[in-house]
Amino acid sequence: MTKNITSQTIQRLPVYLNFLRSLPEEKKKGNISATAIAEALGLNDVQVRKDLACISSGGRPKIGYCTSELISDLGRFLGFENRDSVIVAGMGNLGKAMMEFGSFADYGFDVVCGFDRKDSIAGTTIGGKPVLHIRDMKEYCQRENIRIGIITVPAKAAQEVCQQMADAGIRYILNFAAVHLNPPEGTQVHNENISITLAMLVRGSK
Amino acid sequence: MTKNITSQTIQRLPVYLNFLRSLPEEKKKGNISATAIAEALGLNDVQVRKDLACISSGGRPKIGYCTSELISDLGRFLGFENRDSVIVAGMGNLGKAMMEFGSFADYGFDVVCGFDRKDSIAGTTIGGKPVLHIRDMKEYCQRENIRIGIITVPAKAAQEVCQQMADAGIRYILNFAAVHLNPPEGTQVHNENISITLAMLVRGSK
Repeated sequence: MTKNITSQTIQRLPVYLNFLRSLPEEKKKGNISATAIAEALGLNDVQVRKDLACISSGGRPKIGYCTSELISDLGRFLGFENRDSVIVAGMGNLGKAMMEFGSFADYGFDVVCGFDRKDSIAGTTIGGKPVLHIRDMKEYCQRENIRIGIITVPAKAAQEVCQQMADAGIRYILNFAAVHLNPPEGTQVHNENISITLAMLVRGSK
Repeated sequence: MTKNITSQTIQRLPVYLNFLRSLPEEKKKGNISATAIAEALGLNDVQVRKDLACISSGGRPKIGYCTSELISDLGRFLGFENRDSVIVAGMGNLGKAMMEFGSFADYGFDVVCGFDRKDSIAGTTIGGKPVLHIRDMKEYCQRENIRIGIITVPAKAAQEVCQQMADAGIRYILNFAAVHLNPPEGTQVHNENISITLAMLVRGSK
C-alpha cells in the first residue's frame, strides 16, 4: 500500500495527522472526508485523496474515512509501532529544547540521551533524560543501537561531532549547526539551517 | 541581475556564502572557480555557475571569481546592506536559542526583542536583548516597524500569537510550534515542524 509514495506525500502526512488529532473528541468518533480535510488545511482535495489512499484503505465514497482509523493508519506509517531512539549532541538552549521537545513523540521518536563536552553538564538530566560526556557517545550508541542523532553544537565543532556520530553507528543526522556538513558514507545528513529558512521566507518572496 | 532567480537558487546562495566564508583567510584573497565550489559542496558545476551568475557579474572564464568580491555580492543579495529586525514570541528553551542564535546576523537578521506571557520573564534580558510581556508586542512592533516574527510558543497558543503578530503588522512568520498555522491575509507563514523534518529524513528514505 505504500508503494510509489512520494516525499511530497510523506511531508503532508504528519500535517493530516496533526490536524485530525487537533479535532474535538466528539468529531474523532465520526467520519471525515478528504474534501473536508483539504478545505481545513487549504490544500487541493484531489491531492489529499491521493495522499490518504497511499497509507489507508479505509476511504469509502460519500462517507469518507473513519476518523479514528485514519489517525491509526497515519500514526502506523509515521512510526508509532516502530519507535526510534534519538540522541542529541550539544546542550545549549537549542539542544535543551530538543531534549524537551514534546512533538517528537508524536512522530515515533524518543529522545533518550544528551551529550556535551562540558564536564559540568555531563551527569545531569535535562527534561528527565540523562546527559553524558561526549566521549561516552560511541559506547552508548553502540550499546543501545542508536541510529539517529541531532547536532546542536557550535558550527566549528559540528563536522567533528558528525564524524563521531557516524563512527558510533548513527545513520541519520539532523544538523542545526550553521555549517554545511559533508557526511561520511553510509550516513545521511539533513542540514537544517534556520537562518536560511528565514532568508527564504523573507527574501525569496520579495 | 536578479531577474528570473528561482527559489532553488536562493536556497543554495547561503550555502555558497557559508562555504566561502569558511575558507582560510589566505584563500579568501585569491580567486575561486564555480567548478571548485561545486566540487567542495558536491553540487553540479553547471548549476553553481548559473546560480552565481544570478547575483554576481564578476565571473571570468578560466579565472573564476575574486573570492572576496563574490562574498560581498552574495552578502549584498542576502540582506547585508538592508538588515531586518526580528522578534521572538515564547521564551522557552527554543525561544532562548533564537534570541542567542549567532548565524541570523550573517544573513541580515537582527533579533531585537523577545516576548512572553509570563510576568516573571517580562522585563528581563536574554542574550543581551530585552524581553517584554506579550501584551506589549503590538505597540513595540508598530513603533519599531517590525515585519518578521518567530513563534516558539506551545502549539495550543500558536494560532492566537500568529493573529496577534499579524495585527501588529508582522508580514513574515517562522513558526516552530508543532501545529499548522493558517495565516491571516497579507502575512506569510513558514511552518517549521522539526518532527516532520526528522520523519522525512528517517522514514522518507526507508
